[in-house]
Amino acid sequence: MKKLLILAAALVMSLGAFAQQALWGGQRIVSPEINPDNSVTFRFVAPKAIKVQVTGDFLPTQTVEFEMNGRQMSFDMPGVADLKEGEGGVWSFTSQPLASELYNYNFIVDGISVKDPNNAYVQRDISNIMNYFIIGGGKGDNYLAQDVPHGTVSRVWYDSPNTESKVRRMSVYTPAGYEQSKKKYPVLYLLHGMGGDEEAWLCTGRTAQILDNLIAQGKAEPMIVVMTNGCPQHASAPGESHEGMYKPYNVSSMGGAFESSFGDVIKFVDSRYRTIKKSSGRAIAGLSMGGFHSYHISANMPKTFDYVGLFSAAIMPHEGVSHPIYDNMNEKLAVLFGNNPKLYYIAIGKTDFLYEANVELRQRLDAAGYNYIYNESEGGHVWRNWRDYLLDFAPRLFK
Amino acid sequence: MKKLLILAAALVMSLGAFAQQALWGGQRIVSPEINPDNSVTFRFVAPKAIKVQVTGDFLPTQTVEFEMNGRQMSFDMPGVADLKEGEGGVWSFTSQPLASELYNYNFIVDGISVKDPNNAYVQRDISNIMNYFIIGGGKGDNYLAQDVPHGTVSRVWYDSPNTESKVRRMSVYTPAGYEQSKKKYPVLYLLHGMGGDEEAWLCTGRTAQILDNLIAQGKAEPMIVVMTNGCPQHASAPGESHEGMYKPYNVSSMGGAFESSFGDVIKFVDSRYRTIKKSSGRAIAGLSMGGFHSYHISANMPKTFDYVGLFSAAIMPHEGVSHPIYDNMNEKLAVLFGNNPKLYYIAIGKTDFLYEANVELRQRLDAAGYNYIYNESEGGHVWRNWRDYLLDFAPRLFK
Repeated sequence: MKKLLILAAALVMSLGAFAQQALWGGQRIVSPEINPDNSVTFRFVAPKAIKVQVTGDFLPTQTVEFEMNGRQMSFDMPGVADLKEGEGGVWSFTSQPLASELYNYNFIVDGISVKDPNNAYVQRDISNIMNYFIIGGGKGDNYLAQDVPHGTVSRVWYDSPNTESKVRRMSVYTPAGYEQSKKKYPVLYLLHGMGGDEEAWLCTGRTAQILDNLIAQGKAEPMIVVMTNGCPQHASAPGESHEGMYKPYNVSSMGGAFESSFGDVIKFVDSRYRTIKKSSGRAIAGLSMGGFHSYHISANMPKTFDYVGLFSAAIMPHEGVSHPIYDNMNEKLAVLFGNNPKLYYIAIGKTDFLYEANVELRQRLDAAGYNYIYNESEGGHVWRNWRDYLLDFAPRLFK
Repeated sequence: MKKLLILAAALVMSLGAFAQQALWGGQRIVSPEINPDNSVTFRFVAPKAIKVQVTGDFLPTQTVEFEMNGRQMSFDMPGVADLKEGEGGVWSFTSQPLASELYNYNFIVDGISVKDPNNAYVQRDISNIMNYFIIGGGKGDNYLAQDVPHGTVSRVWYDSPNTESKVRRMSVYTPAGYEQSKKKYPVLYLLHGMGGDEEAWLCTGRTAQILDNLIAQGKAEPMIVVMTNGCPQHASAPGESHEGMYKPYNVSSMGGAFESSFGDVIKFVDSRYRTIKKSSGRAIAGLSMGGFHSYHISANMPKTFDYVGLFSAAIMPHEGVSHPIYDNMNEKLAVLFGNNPKLYYIAIGKTDFLYEANVELRQRLDAAGYNYIYNESEGGHVWRNWRDYLLDFAPRLFK
């Protein structure tokens, strides 16, 4: 009888969850289902719908081409597939077998974008919430939590007197073993793109999983990864500071303010963590606007980083921009490369709208005889490439 | 010209985001909009829809009553309101002025549950993703990040040899100033309910914001808050361990395994953090199943916690359950209360389905002459109450 009572209580609590689930849109089916051949079945319950579709980057992309300033550029737009209605109003679609990768998707029900109510795994990119799934058995294994030692991931506030908000938020990954050890660790400063924040590399970039896995396999050195917020107009990611729960927008910071305050970041990290406080223990890399930041920060602090990574970097001529950070870049690069950095790394996709800008950058570096590693990939200005670049870049550091 | 190029590049990157936004369902309107009188306007673009509704706990609830084991019980189901179609297919609904609070909601478009594409703020409760918003100017201010010093929030892995997985994940809040200080801090162990995990109190419970605010106002002592995962069948929250990205479900742990392994938690916390390593520096509290855990852990470790909080606790007669943790509870409670704990705190809502179970618990405590604080609130088995209880409980600790 006593046991029965407990079971009944458990049942009621389940009932509560079911009621909630029905209420909030949960459906008691499996979606997405990764099949043994790595095809993926998407399911959605909608007995009254006329059309149910799925869109995502697992489908063949539609390339949108356009011209800007005489340059041919393009975007890859995810494709769209129709689901078919089956018994009980359950619509479904099965994809082709997919390569091992992290994919994003959404349903479209009679023209309305709908998250998959059966998939609790979502990523936020600026203001957009996207469902995702990961196909393992290859590259995607790097993005999945594995049975390996895990680092600690922290959201930390630091003093940044050289910004308006004075205190700012960063995300910090310390590798497994950091807390038990007494040794000093190198630091990778990893910067996001336009509209991003200190959550971007953790959430969409899967940085903690990538580093856990690379370090456990012996491919990367144990390192601290510091993920800053590159927009000093804000103290933190949306909703995390007294600025309130505003609608995230495509905020940019390409006026010198973030780069000028980067000394605050290094000073804090070197005081809070057991770091190797010299250039051989520091790397800086970023994607898009973060590549722009990395390019300028490394050149303006030419004795600070032995490793620099520009991922789809928004490199443009800057001589006309009125901030000292952007002045005299050729002279600054001469000093930087004069110090023989151990790695200067440029990666970009063939259809990235910043491809030509990076060709120009390389031409300048080539003309001056500077050494760098160049990784030209397929695809465009997308997170899939930035995760790839981190996978390629991190193992090259601190060796 | 150079400036123009940069502007153009910024434009293209914006364009990319807009394309993405359209693709992933973003709409360029404001929703929800909190009006000056604290009414809230919800908007949704759906030119072809027949019916657009909003459901959430800001609407008058519908109480569902039922009987179990001869007891009258009830759930509060969120209400539903119809939006009206306006120009350009923009549907809208404005609520009554709302009390200061955190509210959850969803749209329902022609019967399909849809997240608000204009609101990037979501909470996960078990497998359900819910939009939320916060009305400030009162109690809700506790749940908003304010212009106060912020603590550090970390996801940490710890050794738990007394569980199957051996290593497990927890969330840890250290108060502002912890890292710069040398003093020792008290610890609140804060446990989630059925289906929850180590993210629940941070995400839906707003623990970091609550503690930041209470501490900054001088209402609560600076304390560490340790949020465990109460289901030792799992190493971590869904997707965070090698168990993979399974569909979160209403997992329960009421068989003694979690309680038995709680020594692992305390051992780790006392070794990793600067803690006050005695009962006067330890509190344990939990909601629902976490209240059940707190009840048994505190009684089985009677010299460990001077502060115990049972929030809507799943207290049931347990003498028949075959685990030593649940045996001889009356004798264990006698030892616990014999040690004169500084606070034994019971909170429950009037319409909670566990109300009667908590009446019985209080009758037992009363019959034995044990002292406790009792907080009877309106409402049922909902997060709104659990945040309230934390707001009431935390200021009573470590004074």
